[in-house]
Amino acid sequence: MEQVPENVPALEDIRAAYLRIRNYVHRTPVFTSKAINQIAGADLFFKCENFQKVGAFKFRGATHAVMRLREEEAARGVATHSSGNHAAALALAASLRGIPAYIVMPENSPVIKKKAVAGYGANITFCEPTLQARESSLEEVVAETGARFVHPYNNFEVVCGQGTATLEFLEQVPELEVVMPPVGGGGLLSGTAVAARGLKPEIIIYGAEPAGADDAFRSLQKGEIVPSVSPRTIADGLLTSLGPLTFAVISKKVDDILTCSEDSIVAAMRLIWERMKIVAEPSAAVPLAVVLDHPEVFRNRKVGLIVSGGNVDLTRLPF
Amino acid sequence: MEQVPENVPALEDIRAAYLRIRNYVHRTPVFTSKAINQIAGADLFFKCENFQKVGAFKFRGATHAVMRLREEEAARGVATHSSGNHAAALALAASLRGIPAYIVMPENSPVIKKKAVAGYGANITFCEPTLQARESSLEEVVAETGARFVHPYNNFEVVCGQGTATLEFLEQVPELEVVMPPVGGGGLLSGTAVAARGLKPEIIIYGAEPAGADDAFRSLQKGEIVPSVSPRTIADGLLTSLGPLTFAVISKKVDDILTCSEDSIVAAMRLIWERMKIVAEPSAAVPLAVVLDHPEVFRNRKVGLIVSGGNVDLTRLPF
Repeated sequence: MEQVPENVPALEDIRAAYLRIRNYVHRTPVFTSKAINQIAGADLFFKCENFQKVGAFKFRGATHAVMRLREEEAARGVATHSSGNHAAALALAASLRGIPAYIVMPENSPVIKKKAVAGYGANITFCEPTLQARESSLEEVVAETGARFVHPYNNFEVVCGQGTATLEFLEQVPELEVVMPPVGGGGLLSGTAVAARGLKPEIIIYGAEPAGADDAFRSLQKGEIVPSVSPRTIADGLLTSLGPLTFAVISKKVDDILTCSEDSIVAAMRLIWERMKIVAEPSAAVPLAVVLDHPEVFRNRKVGLIVSGGNVDLTRLPF
Repeated sequence: MEQVPENVPALEDIRAAYLRIRNYVHRTPVFTSKAINQIAGADLFFKCENFQKVGAFKFRGATHAVMRLREEEAARGVATHSSGNHAAALALAASLRGIPAYIVMPENSPVIKKKAVAGYGANITFCEPTLQARESSLEEVVAETGARFVHPYNNFEVVCGQGTATLEFLEQVPELEVVMPPVGGGGLLSGTAVAARGLKPEIIIYGAEPAGADDAFRSLQKGEIVPSVSPRTIADGLLTSLGPLTFAVISKKVDDILTCSEDSIVAAMRLIWERMKIVAEPSAAVPLAVVLDHPEVFRNRKVGLIVSGGNVDLTRLPF
């Protein structure tokens, strides 16, 4: 599964994915805030995937992967490892199709995410919070059950699903000059890039990444995947490394990866909560944090930011 | 100003108010949550006035009061005392008309509300957190400036403005069987009652009140205004007593006042934040708290709740 991909998604694949999932996903609204625009010196548009089912964009990709399985394959269920939102998304998508979901979760995942996955009726296996432990636990689960592994991001169908958020976004705000999701494993950024570049070739596409977990930034600099080793960031959804598929797409279609400080992530998160009255998780505040840290890049531009999710433990807020 | 009112608003007054303010206010969205519906055993619709300008429905009433002033009256400005949201609302409404606002605020008002009022350019006078201190400070300000006092709720134009939220709500969800805003001074409940009773005579109208500040409940029981003395509730927007105007409207048009516990307010607030991913202040969670505390009243009904505001100090959350 770690080979160079032969096949990467095109705009038509994302359009086809949207036709398959549009009855299952929410068409999420776009919010704006005059107060935040004044602070940022730019025209910002926030695509609210925190209002998506399971509280994150991940539901788009997981639903698409589940809906694409053939009957006999689907019957054995789906499996994955995930720090949280993909797990909940796959669990709900599987339950909608009436098939089992087997989820390997790091034992230090946020309580709210563990609860959500259990609430959707998935079978959970907890493991150590390392990539190695996640992968070996998952192998055992797949060997036992015959379930189909749905990778959180390095998966063609998942990337197509994530891209559907940007199909909607550019319908809602066609005048966008820049689009910027956060980047962890790169599934959302890949889908965004394919959709946005296809629909509007001249658009500028950035990935937003915490400086404390800047493996995507370094991967693009070096021209090969630089693994994420001991990342340090409050943005718990962005700890993972790029995969071969997402690296291939991002290398080809994304203009740049821009990074931000931890202080700016907290400040951005607080601005989103206080000024827009919406709950965004730290990862979802990373694009606004990048705008705050690089004001000259965005000055007076129409910038689309993807608020990737809203699953946060309210008893452990950074303010 | 504490006389029995000769004149109470009718539906036509609220319609006229809406024509005057519709270009200034947000038409706020209605949210729903399957998860909360399951917990509550009812079909709940949340009118999101936390997304209104200044983060609260109060902007509707304040804007209407300001827009109704004659030119020469407006030039001398407006004045009020308020624990927060009405102050911010009047300050912004005045700045939109380009006239001065003089605001008397209790010194213990939440920091976020003090900041908001100052940010809209109002002249602030701080006072002791008692009704007496608020009224005497206000009298001084009005004597000095000649500004027009805009009462937070016991004011015809303000009540008409607050009622516009329900004009929108019943357009957005015509099938509502029950509508329930929180009740503090009764401005929102009065406007809601006039609009809802006028548009849909058979609708059930409840006011939602903390048991620890149940002066409206007791006022309706007794048939006269029972002042709010030493209220104890986290719902800092609902500490005030009814006024003659709001008491008259509520007595005539509201089916009942229902109360809720403090624990349920916190639980309801947390449900709103966690499941709907929106920021609601404690007062705005009181209607859902009432549903949780009286499930038998709402079972399987289509219930419209007004999320009255989202201005909360994020560093002092109850969870």
